[in-house]
Amino acid sequence: MKFNGRNHYVSSSAILGENVKLGDNVSIYDNVTIGSNSIIANDCVIGEPTSDYYHSENYVNTPTNIAAGALIRSHSIIYSGVSIGTQFQSGHRITIRENTVIGNHCRVGTNSDLQGFIIIGNYCQLHSNVHLCQFSSLGNFVFIYPNVVLANDTHPPTENVKGPEIGDYTQIGIQSSIIGNIQIGENCLIGAGSVITRDFDAFSLIIGSPATLKSDVRELIGLDGKPLYPWKTRFNRGMPWDV
Amino acid sequence: MKFNGRNHYVSSSAILGENVKLGDNVSIYDNVTIGSNSIIANDCVIGEPTSDYYHSENYVNTPTNIAAGALIRSHSIIYSGVSIGTQFQSGHRITIRENTVIGNHCRVGTNSDLQGFIIIGNYCQLHSNVHLCQFSSLGNFVFIYPNVVLANDTHPPTENVKGPEIGDYTQIGIQSSIIGNIQIGENCLIGAGSVITRDFDAFSLIIGSPATLKSDVRELIGLDGKPLYPWKTRFNRGMPWDV
Amino acid sequence: MKFNGRNHYVSSSAILGENVKLGDNVSIYDNVTIGSNSIIANDCVIGEPTSDYYHSENYVNTPTNIAAGALIRSHSIIYSGVSIGTQFQSGHRITIRENTVIGNHCRVGTNSDLQGFIIIGNYCQLHSNVHLCQFSSLGNFVFIYPNVVLANDTHPPTENVKGPEIGDYTQIGIQSSIIGNIQIGENCLIGAGSVITRDFDAFSLIIGSPATLKSDVRELIGLDGKPLYPWKTRFNRGMPWDV
Repeated sequence: MKFNGRNHYVSSSAILGENVKLGDNVSIYDNVTIGSNSIIANDCVIGEPTSDYYHSENYVNTPTNIAAGALIRSHSIIYSGVSIGTQFQSGHRITIRENTVIGNHCRVGTNSDLQGFIIIGNYCQLHSNVHLCQFSSLGNFVFIYPNVVLANDTHPPTENVKGPEIGDYTQIGIQSSIIGNIQIGENCLIGAGSVITRDFDAFSLIIGSPATLKSDVRELIGLDGKPLYPWKTRFNRGMPWDV
Repeated sequence: MKFNGRNHYVSSSAILGENVKLGDNVSIYDNVTIGSNSIIANDCVIGEPTSDYYHSENYVNTPTNIAAGALIRSHSIIYSGVSIGTQFQSGHRITIRENTVIGNHCRVGTNSDLQGFIIIGNYCQLHSNVHLCQFSSLGNFVFIYPNVVLANDTHPPTENVKGPEIGDYTQIGIQSSIIGNIQIGENCLIGAGSVITRDFDAFSLIIGSPATLKSDVRELIGLDGKPLYPWKTRFNRGMPWDV
Repeated sequence: MKFNGRNHYVSSSAILGENVKLGDNVSIYDNVTIGSNSIIANDCVIGEPTSDYYHSENYVNTPTNIAAGALIRSHSIIYSGVSIGTQFQSGHRITIRENTVIGNHCRVGTNSDLQGFIIIGNYCQLHSNVHLCQFSSLGNFVFIYPNVVLANDTHPPTENVKGPEIGDYTQIGIQSSIIGNIQIGENCLIGAGSVITRDFDAFSLIIGSPATLKSDVRELIGLDGKPLYPWKTRFNRGMPWDV
């Protein structure tokens, strides 16, 4: 149904593994490698050249690597110079700019926008319309919910800036803003609509604008009388401890 | 100008009514029905298969029904298993996932993202970049403004979740967050940037983070000395009471 | 790599200047003029017809003018009746609706959505996913950061509405909401996540929901002991005072 081989463009320097499927109207530019059993759905662009391409006569596309088992949904754009681990899945119309390294088993939701120069660990899940600024980083098992923005400039505009670092297992609620060269520890929970401009330690429940420490997340108790956090005791879908 | 018949794909099992126009680069997949006098603008995908398509050899696309008089603007994606009533209009690049039922005379704005398993009544209007979570529902005449997110998990991540129900005529201001298995009554007005995690009765003016009840909306008076709400006495464009 | 001349549509009434490059799958509709040395990347639509096109047999596309030196990235949609000055740059998937006038040296980021009937001065920079409502205006050197929404209706729904006016050099932080027929003065700084529904004078530091005046921005001192604002003393990239 979807893989009819219509209107492709695949660069002669691209390397596609075994059993890679390309949707209609896909463009695969120079120096892209795609691992076996991957699906690149219709209208995607992989290996999008950076700004220099439009200005420099001697431009060469930096290598782009997408490891085995990827499912990249339609209308997505992945720049040259991006490296993505195994079993990656995306929604539609994601944008990932250059110099971004993403680990294994990650997901990036519809309309999400990664601005480049970003490091993401393993098993991270970005839901829809997440915006990650340049020079930000996520640990492992970080989940970010819709319309969250990470930003790197507390007093804009500024020429040299660094974005937030988010610790392992931390959950970032919808519509939150996390700004500047700050560290959010492991296993934190950030409430919806929070605005954060300072560091927080591991296991913090962080809420408000400006955000403050409400409690230790380990004090949150579910309807079954058990602690809700750390969440790895109660959530398994797609996680390495799921059997 | 726009309907040149370039680079279409229309499944042999799709049924198009009289006077349906298809823009360039449109894909209509299996088991899609489109009512008469509809326009599917360029680069749209109708009947997008669900995840199972990528894994199952025996996958069959669930029927997709778009009733008469639709105008779906370019680059939109509507999954298989979606049912949409008459006179639907969309902006550009909307996404509507599977198992969603939308009534008559609805509008969904540019970049809006409906995550599936959603029920929407008649005459609802979603402005740009509205995100509706799975298992949420809207009554009739619900208007939602840009960058609102409905979410279904108050303590993420959780495996089984249910989203909000929004009552008839309720207006949801820009950048609001509405979270969890909650009910918002009829004829409410939700202020911009509110964060809501509990039920509110009909006619509530709801503002803040966390949101609180400010007053009864019927106490709001316009410059002409008349009550602003219920709004159906003062707004007619596109409504059934407009003559 | 990107300009292979595949699957173009260029109206016979379009006028392209010298050395204009068109990406694959680009559509240039009637009465579009594009200045010399411009790049329209793949999958863009320039001169998108307005709603009347779908209803009127005698529809004629209003002229669209994009001045010299534009770089419009892929999947963007610019309506007929838009006028854009020299050296414009965009991200991917921007939407600019009709009756919008944009000055010289402006930038509009990925996924941004300009709803039409908007006036923007020179050297403005909109980052990703900025939403500007109808009948809003920006002065010169206004920078707007991700997920900001300008809206034009304080008590929705209303039939005749006017949006905000933003003064020269003002900086609008991420996730902010600016609503109604209000004026924000020159050289203001608006904090992340603010909700603004009233006027503010020049040089205001504006924070909160509802937003209040925190101080004069000229009182903010950087790590080097110098005032951070007005920012034109410390930020040069792409600005006319950069040498």
